[in-house]
Amino acid sequence: MQRFLDLDDFTRDQVSDLIALARRLQDHPEPRALAGKILGLLFMNPSLRTLSSFQAGMMRLGGSSFVVTPGQGTWQVETRTGAVMNAGAAEHVREAIPVLASYCDALGIRSFAEGRDLATDIAETQFRLMAGLCDKPFVNMESAMNHPCQSLADWKTMDDLAVPRTGRFVLSWVYHPRALPLAVPAATLHMAAHRGMEVVVLRPDGYALPESVMAKARAAAKASGGSVGETSDRASALAGAHVLYAKEWGSPECYGNAAAEALLREPLQDWCVRDDWFEGARPDCHFMHCLPVRRNVAVADAVLDGPRSRVIPEAANRMVVQMAVLYRLLKGSFGR
Amino acid sequence: MQRFLDLDDFTRDQVSDLIALARRLQDHPEPRALAGKILGLLFMNPSLRTLSSFQAGMMRLGGSSFVVTPGQGTWQVETRTGAVMNAGAAEHVREAIPVLASYCDALGIRSFAEGRDLATDIAETQFRLMAGLCDKPFVNMESAMNHPCQSLADWKTMDDLAVPRTGRFVLSWVYHPRALPLAVPAATLHMAAHRGMEVVVLRPDGYALPESVMAKARAAAKASGGSVGETSDRASALAGAHVLYAKEWGSPECYGNAAAEALLREPLQDWCVRDDWFEGARPDCHFMHCLPVRRNVAVADAVLDGPRSRVIPEAANRMVVQMAVLYRLLKGSFGR
Amino acid sequence: MQRFLDLDDFTRDQVSDLIALARRLQDHPEPRALAGKILGLLFMNPSLRTLSSFQAGMMRLGGSSFVVTPGQGTWQVETRTGAVMNAGAAEHVREAIPVLASYCDALGIRSFAEGRDLATDIAETQFRLMAGLCDKPFVNMESAMNHPCQSLADWKTMDDLAVPRTGRFVLSWVYHPRALPLAVPAATLHMAAHRGMEVVVLRPDGYALPESVMAKARAAAKASGGSVGETSDRASALAGAHVLYAKEWGSPECYGNAAAEALLREPLQDWCVRDDWFEGARPDCHFMHCLPVRRNVAVADAVLDGPRSRVIPEAANRMVVQMAVLYRLLKGSFGR
Repeated sequence: MQRFLDLDDFTRDQVSDLIALARRLQDHPEPRALAGKILGLLFMNPSLRTLSSFQAGMMRLGGSSFVVTPGQGTWQVETRTGAVMNAGAAEHVREAIPVLASYCDALGIRSFAEGRDLATDIAETQFRLMAGLCDKPFVNMESAMNHPCQSLADWKTMDDLAVPRTGRFVLSWVYHPRALPLAVPAATLHMAAHRGMEVVVLRPDGYALPESVMAKARAAAKASGGSVGETSDRASALAGAHVLYAKEWGSPECYGNAAAEALLREPLQDWCVRDDWFEGARPDCHFMHCLPVRRNVAVADAVLDGPRSRVIPEAANRMVVQMAVLYRLLKGSFGR
Repeated sequence: MQRFLDLDDFTRDQVSDLIALARRLQDHPEPRALAGKILGLLFMNPSLRTLSSFQAGMMRLGGSSFVVTPGQGTWQVETRTGAVMNAGAAEHVREAIPVLASYCDALGIRSFAEGRDLATDIAETQFRLMAGLCDKPFVNMESAMNHPCQSLADWKTMDDLAVPRTGRFVLSWVYHPRALPLAVPAATLHMAAHRGMEVVVLRPDGYALPESVMAKARAAAKASGGSVGETSDRASALAGAHVLYAKEWGSPECYGNAAAEALLREPLQDWCVRDDWFEGARPDCHFMHCLPVRRNVAVADAVLDGPRSRVIPEAANRMVVQMAVLYRLLKGSFGR
Repeated sequence: MQRFLDLDDFTRDQVSDLIALARRLQDHPEPRALAGKILGLLFMNPSLRTLSSFQAGMMRLGGSSFVVTPGQGTWQVETRTGAVMNAGAAEHVREAIPVLASYCDALGIRSFAEGRDLATDIAETQFRLMAGLCDKPFVNMESAMNHPCQSLADWKTMDDLAVPRTGRFVLSWVYHPRALPLAVPAATLHMAAHRGMEVVVLRPDGYALPESVMAKARAAAKASGGSVGETSDRASALAGAHVLYAKEWGSPECYGNAAAEALLREPLQDWCVRDDWFEGARPDCHFMHCLPVRRNVAVADAVLDGPRSRVIPEAANRMVVQMAVLYRLLKGSFGR
């Protein structure tokens, strides 16, 4: 079984191979490589980049895809094991996923964190259940705690920019009107550590990432020769930084408690990336964000429209790396 | 004009031919058979299997498709003849359907029962109007009283399982939080009778299917050598059964009266299929359901996850038989 | 850069060339002409014809497409420059459009008028911003004040019907329950003038089109040998008409003021096209409308179902002319 669930399932050499394949497909298109192959795309949550880049990537390889969005043209689906389904959901993933898998050659699923219980989300309980119901090659299009397609695209983007493998990578919390999931910060932190970088998590008090997330990143750093630190001090974090990667996330301390989280978050509206954040960074420090981004809330216009911003190349690389993932899933094999 | 409206338009030999074609396309794919052909899909109601299996089926034959869902990205559409359109609907099917038909080579429409007047729904007034507006090959993707694609898939599923043509087929009413349409029970009853089976409709008092539905099934049974009965006694119905086919439907007696129907339905929550329902059935009795199904409301987890369940093969056969239907609609001819 | 923004960017000979290409592709299909090409479709507003005809047109030329609909499966998007995005929209077009453009070979955008400030909408401020963010061939799928695909289809429809280039073309306001944008009336008026026709705008008091719209049409008429007039007198307008083109639009005098507009509109419900409107017209006078149309509110059933109606051929021509536009955008060049 071929699965693309977590970048941690791939050695650094395997990641490099995937990125090399992505580059090869950019430079030497193979418009019939996946002719006749069908990708099913199940979106439990909204998407712009993932929705369009997976479809476009399949098309560029000669394949095709279909999209299913529960609650929008399709039944709402239940995910809880043992549920008595007498409310809104008309269908359970235990039926929906095997059925969709039977129609396609590979299946991608997006299913965000429930945001109620941190341990449940960290365990990826729901996503593992869903992935286990699919007997076809499978892609994680963002789960409770992971977003490997985004991480692979970000890794390639830094390679494209010749950011040193040992460069300083600052993952900074930024403000958002409500608590967002931990998937991208967890995946990004791990990706940078896995790449061998000097990683610093910059976040206000109350927004430290869960210990298991930090531990996974430290283990990756240990293997790659990188390092992982954290601080709430912006100046020290950004001193000498090669990359500032901004991301919004909810406080793990108030997980599932929106009211408490709102109180904690309210005074933090100055955590909006502005040009002066880069004062102590390297002159060529890059700004990264996975998108979507709320302008002038999480990041100022001047940064997004300025010369440091790499948000468009990151997003463009989504299609490029996903083509490599689909190529391997549907034609070959990978994984540790 | 090629149309796939009702399994009753096909002799048993013609049904067998369609199923044989479906098997042939499974075993010997023809990935260019419908190259350049376009299927339009108009969904007036939600779908998971139909939405994805028609798209995937066209892709597997080298064709393509587009989806239109009124009220979701598209105008709400009016279906009533002579309506003064000063409310929510911006477009009438009298324009929408001929326009969509002009863009495609075949058109499928899903349009559930209105659920107001039983005679109107039984007459398929609305669906016949819509089908009549299409001058291209046409597929019924579920109308007020029919679902021929589901029935063809179910027929093939029983053939795949070597269920005898003369086997005992129990169509059992099961509980649902609200009244559902009669399309699947009517189509399933007719399909099993048409196949030549010993059919029993098991339903509580107040849920007898309309006389015209029973009469159509009896006529099919007469032609095929089968039989059609009905009862509210579970044990006698299931004694010696080869197949238990569960389905939710609203009381024809309270048609269009949701409050009265809710009162009638309220004490019937034990009509949820459990393992002990199969006690008098054949040891290898199969469990079938068209999906979606509400777990632990209509059917218990133990049945859906147990060895009798055929719900996934039924759904998988949707794509398989629809490929045969599309192949014939777009390349050949069929019908009595 | 190839762009299809406004029919005014094309000389009459260039329009004729596009229509000739459309006819050639009708008569001599080129099912591989755009093989491997991808069209991105961004719909900020609902659609039936545009949504399905662009997809089907790409399929008929061997290409493919993907659809993104903000607010439905995708984030709501912000369009205002400098916005502080602390409300519903999670993503700005400044990111969304370049990202989508990176996945496709051509991008189409539909974005209706905001309907708040007439000058802003007339200036196409928002649409020009969006088009400027796309570095790929670009199609206007209806902007605040334009709908060039509709106009090209209507031009071809009149050519198909042998309506004289110098024929009398009446664009008549018709009733609608609320104020609709000026895009189609403005584009239609200009198209007919550009074609060289004797154009009359028939509208009640308060519904005169903005002076800049009239001026653009007069300039086109001057160049083509046509003419542009306006009146509120139905009989004089329709006397000798070759074409009655009905369209709903909001009063420019009450632009952005729904309450005042409703008062102005309320007594005008007899502006619903009926058979007797054609009494003084030519016996073979054609009835046209871009669709969707509210039956028995804007136009009576008898007209839409009668022998004068050309609404279905107009809509069918949408796909046909758009195939020519896509062919040129993705394979060649055009524009003044």
